[in-house]
Amino acid sequence: MAFAEVSTDLISQFETIVGEENVIIDPEKRYNYSHDETEDYSFLPDVVLKPGTPEEISRIMKLCNQHLIPVTPRGGGTGLSGGALPVQNGVVISMERFNKILNIDELNLQATVEPGVITEVFQNAVKEKGLFYPPDPASRGSCFIGGNVSENSGGPKAVKYGVTRDYVLNLEVVLPTGDIIWTGANVLKNSTGYNLTQLMCGSEGTLGIITKIVFKLRGIPQKSVLLLMPFITNEEACKAIAEIFRAGVNPSGMEFFEREAAMKTIDYCEKIYAAKVTTPFPENMDAYLLCELDGNDDEVLMREAEAVMSVVEKFQAGEILFADTAAQKEELWKIRKNISPGVNAYSLTKAEDVVVPRASLPKLIVGIKEIGKRYGFNSVCYGHIGDGNLHVNVMKEQISDEDWNTKINDGIGEIFKLTVSLGGTLSGEHGIGIAKRPYMPIAMREANLTLMRGIKKAFDPNGILNPGKIF
Amino acid sequence: MAFAEVSTDLISQFETIVGEENVIIDPEKRYNYSHDETEDYSFLPDVVLKPGTPEEISRIMKLCNQHLIPVTPRGGGTGLSGGALPVQNGVVISMERFNKILNIDELNLQATVEPGVITEVFQNAVKEKGLFYPPDPASRGSCFIGGNVSENSGGPKAVKYGVTRDYVLNLEVVLPTGDIIWTGANVLKNSTGYNLTQLMCGSEGTLGIITKIVFKLRGIPQKSVLLLMPFITNEEACKAIAEIFRAGVNPSGMEFFEREAAMKTIDYCEKIYAAKVTTPFPENMDAYLLCELDGNDDEVLMREAEAVMSVVEKFQAGEILFADTAAQKEELWKIRKNISPGVNAYSLTKAEDVVVPRASLPKLIVGIKEIGKRYGFNSVCYGHIGDGNLHVNVMKEQISDEDWNTKINDGIGEIFKLTVSLGGTLSGEHGIGIAKRPYMPIAMREANLTLMRGIKKAFDPNGILNPGKIF
Repeated sequence: MAFAEVSTDLISQFETIVGEENVIIDPEKRYNYSHDETEDYSFLPDVVLKPGTPEEISRIMKLCNQHLIPVTPRGGGTGLSGGALPVQNGVVISMERFNKILNIDELNLQATVEPGVITEVFQNAVKEKGLFYPPDPASRGSCFIGGNVSENSGGPKAVKYGVTRDYVLNLEVVLPTGDIIWTGANVLKNSTGYNLTQLMCGSEGTLGIITKIVFKLRGIPQKSVLLLMPFITNEEACKAIAEIFRAGVNPSGMEFFEREAAMKTIDYCEKIYAAKVTTPFPENMDAYLLCELDGNDDEVLMREAEAVMSVVEKFQAGEILFADTAAQKEELWKIRKNISPGVNAYSLTKAEDVVVPRASLPKLIVGIKEIGKRYGFNSVCYGHIGDGNLHVNVMKEQISDEDWNTKINDGIGEIFKLTVSLGGTLSGEHGIGIAKRPYMPIAMREANLTLMRGIKKAFDPNGILNPGKIF
Repeated sequence: MAFAEVSTDLISQFETIVGEENVIIDPEKRYNYSHDETEDYSFLPDVVLKPGTPEEISRIMKLCNQHLIPVTPRGGGTGLSGGALPVQNGVVISMERFNKILNIDELNLQATVEPGVITEVFQNAVKEKGLFYPPDPASRGSCFIGGNVSENSGGPKAVKYGVTRDYVLNLEVVLPTGDIIWTGANVLKNSTGYNLTQLMCGSEGTLGIITKIVFKLRGIPQKSVLLLMPFITNEEACKAIAEIFRAGVNPSGMEFFEREAAMKTIDYCEKIYAAKVTTPFPENMDAYLLCELDGNDDEVLMREAEAVMSVVEKFQAGEILFADTAAQKEELWKIRKNISPGVNAYSLTKAEDVVVPRASLPKLIVGIKEIGKRYGFNSVCYGHIGDGNLHVNVMKEQISDEDWNTKINDGIGEIFKLTVSLGGTLSGEHGIGIAKRPYMPIAMREANLTLMRGIKKAFDPNGILNPGKIF
């Protein structure tokens, strides 16, 4: 696809549509929109637009579709696969002015929000009404909820409560042609034609620009317990996972991290929270499971905790820390949630997001370390292991730029091949974007990619929306 | 699309592919494949094929794609929207030989099954391993699980545990071109390209033929309580619904039926089960809610039941029946699950399947009865009301054939318009098929239908697979 340049005439048309103050052409200010949290990628947009209504976006899309200008929608810029980067330059549409919670419908347990609302702001707003929106990505303090829908974000609660897409009932979307549609209806069940709502979730801004989201909500569980369970090896921790779930418990969080992840994060946490970390991470314990159980009944929670502990006892595990104070729980979650920035503060990384059936986790973790040895990289592994979702941060450290961009990528390809051979796939919650795009043929056949390209064409005949992503 | 005839040469090629014994040309035998449970529709296929492997289906599809022969896949023939009817004649592919449960993976809580397995057979097989597959359509004793995926079936447990699509992790599919793909991976979370798995769910056999399904499973809840709650009007019952959920309880079933539905079903039940129904349905109570709570702790269940009852007390309700014996529970579920055949034994019906946000239910039920008066039809209403999903059986009774096919359809159009005006849509779990197809423009804009046609074209460029359905 040969795209056109953004002409000065187009710029002035954009100014008419969104107002001069919402058109960014200054290169320094544009630079802020050139990167996200993915490695060290940077692609400068020709112009950044900050529309305020779906109608404005519709007019922008019609113009860009007519003139073959690439358009890349952008949320909070916290993505980990480069989904919001304008790899073909052109127009970036920043959704930052779509920042209103339009309605929290307490009777229907639904909320309608604009995509530029920060996830944590939304979580807190529904909490004030006694309601619960479970998806909880680590970046919740700065990510936009529209980005969560586009990448189908998960987080620690997903193991019990599902990922973002499980809460999306309906979407208002501006199509690349400028048409504005609702994808479905505000209902809990829907068998009315193809599921456009679910097709949009996780489509990484390549099919349309989301302008309103209808979420379903739940009641808040009133109580929780948190267990920190040390294991002598990461393989042993991974072996325990499937057995814990087979025992019939349904944890509201089941996280894994290597001791190394905690070590690299503690300094970072102590600095940003200005508080000493008191949890011990003994040297002879290589890996940890952080297990949260929630509900409304103390006795039931204690029974479930006992069931978890009696499974863990069968493995080579250390003493279980039962976090019984709010402060202790908070510290453990702080460490877990800061692993990604903590490790990144230590070294540039490539952040992988593989996912396998739970029982394959021991083979996966052993295989990753073996591949690391073979290709010469260290990795820090952690993640939402109850879902089979392992984050693998491959660290640059002393690796040369050349090796980093060639040999190490081959090693990552090996990790993906192993993952797929174990019944898994490339991404559990970060998306493909540009960072994982070269590896897609490992995960699926050409026939799958052909179908995806055909779907893309049905939505975006000229291929102007977020080009260069996924496939 | 001008389709071709099934020539004798093609028949002999089909015989080579699937074996002569799996090709049905005898008209009387073909007739069995001409109808399902939808009204009195009947469309005779030119030939019925019973392939045994995905590869056989692939070869059939290649031939039919090349010769422009329409192909309609068929499950158990229990559909309620005509999704499996060969409206353009041609080939019916019956999935009856795909009847094996291939694997129940107890460690990963997953199962791989062929689409021709009867839903109840699968439910029982996983139950034997101490596991739980919650989707539970009323036709579970005869429907095929592949049909459940294709129509995205629900049932009473959906209100707590979700519909069929919430359990589908991965699908093996033969595309109209003959390509065989897996749509995703056997994982609990997946953000790897467009969600082809969810796109297949509910696509009513128009995008590909499902040949293997990977489901996720859960642990079985050990205990349940069941409450039958009478209300003086159907509006009053519908008003109570949203308040019950707002109170924070999470029922595993929340069903509604009018007294009339029970009355019409009791005879039917007494006949097929040869047992007298003992539950009283007093004349002054017009509507009932059947509320099931499940879990593993008696005390928690009793607390939840009390919470439900204290909400219901605020409405104009009668005495609540607390079903404490297995026999009483079984009788109540028998009545509920036999309403559809019970009502149909009494009169030919058009079975609607509308769904709205819960708080809109009172307006919906009042409006349906008002429309019935205006257009001259009686209706029996029941359904999975906790999901906002109301089944409306419009009864033919003494209505003339002419009115039945014109005026009554206009009245049904009014019901759909009302539903959509209340934020709802046409189908919660039965699908669109041919029966609801004329009403699709009420539920969505032309732009949505254009997208759906584009998706269809990406999968099925020649439009041979299950033509004439949905749009």
